Amino acid sequence: MSKTIAILGGTGDLGTGLARRWAKAGHRVIIGSRAAEKAQAAAAEVEGAEGMDNLAAPAAAEIVAITVPYENQLRTLEAVKDALKGKILIDATVPLMPPKVGTVQLPEGGCAAVNAQKMLGEEVQVVSAFQNVAAEKLKSSDDLDCDILVTGDKLAAREEVIKLVEDAGLKGWHAGPLANSAAAEALTSVIIQINRRYKITAGIRITG
Amino acid sequence: MSKTIAILGGTGDLGTGLARRWAKAGHRVIIGSRAAEKAQAAAAEVEGAEGMDNLAAPAAAEIVAITVPYENQLRTLEAVKDALKGKILIDATVPLMPPKVGTVQLPEGGCAAVNAQKMLGEEVQVVSAFQNVAAEKLKSSDDLDCDILVTGDKLAAREEVIKLVEDAGLKGWHAGPLANSAAAEALTSVIIQINRRYKITAGIRITG
Repeated sequence: MSKTIAILGGTGDLGTGLARRWAKAGHRVIIGSRAAEKAQAAAAEVEGAEGMDNLAAPAAAEIVAITVPYENQLRTLEAVKDALKGKILIDATVPLMPPKVGTVQLPEGGCAAVNAQKMLGEEVQVVSAFQNVAAEKLKSSDDLDCDILVTGDKLAAREEVIKLVEDAGLKGWHAGPLANSAAAEALTSVIIQINRRYKITAGIRITG
Repeated sequence: MSKTIAILGGTGDLGTGLARRWAKAGHRVIIGSRAAEKAQAAAAEVEGAEGMDNLAAPAAAEIVAITVPYENQLRTLEAVKDALKGKILIDATVPLMPPKVGTVQLPEGGCAAVNAQKMLGEEVQVVSAFQNVAAEKLKSSDDLDCDILVTGDKLAAREEVIKLVEDAGLKGWHAGPLANSAAAEALTSVIIQINRRYKITAGIRITG
């Protein structure tokens, strides 16, 4: 079923990649950015997407994704807290702390997605996903050799996000409660290390 | 090159699995347990292995692995601290906190392997590995569809452990500093969730 999805910070590689893939799958996609003009410019490159500022985008959407750098995560969400009420927030945040982005440094409390959920309160259903897919691959139209760990405290919300993961051409796995987002968040630094050492663009697959 | 490897807590599935595979690859394997008789009984089941108590085993070995439950990790290591000096310790500990083993609950400081390294000091080279392989599959002689994330602060020690990972029939990846063990430790709860939900015995593969 077609959804209206806003992507906060949708002008980066990850956000644009999701926008392209979801628009192609038939969803109405709104790219959000701090400046509406920047969002509109990015949307002009994505067939079927439109651009709004980060405040207007979530108000116009049924489902909201956030793909901003870690340092902007809570501030961006705080500003749109009311517009997120009753909605699913797909949090793709990875708590990388430059310059040591190849070293796991989990935030206070252990998990960026859990911190977002705490700040937003129970009226928002935070589901964490997309931490481990290479943004530049997602932005391309290539097949993606990567699975997505989907965590969240509400089963129905996870189910809905797993459908959107599939619409983006990826396989999503129910990976447990939102606290388990810590695994996906930490894994990104491992992937960065592997990319550097083996000169690949790594992803993960679940086997078994 | 053949090594003498002691496995603390080697009577469990993971320890016995490693013992079998390493002995088969031509290493001298010493299974350690709290009681020497229990270690000897376990060793009798593994061709080419011998059994000693957890105190004697590391003193007789060049490389030591630990595969005990999380609650016994630091206590077991503390007791053999001196015997570990100048050696590599392969730490397979997963900080699972029953009853919620399917929920990531990283320890104080964020990483069980880092806590071991801190307690043991710089004379011991802690390398973390084997958190994400199913113990019962490791114990079998089946091919293993799982990669191993190998983390540690010293490159040469990681290299040596990666060779032992290969001797056990698995692919090992340089996954960065010991702090990155947090990713492998956290991932185990994700794998437990996936096993429960999808009725599989999951592992991970690095793609790219």
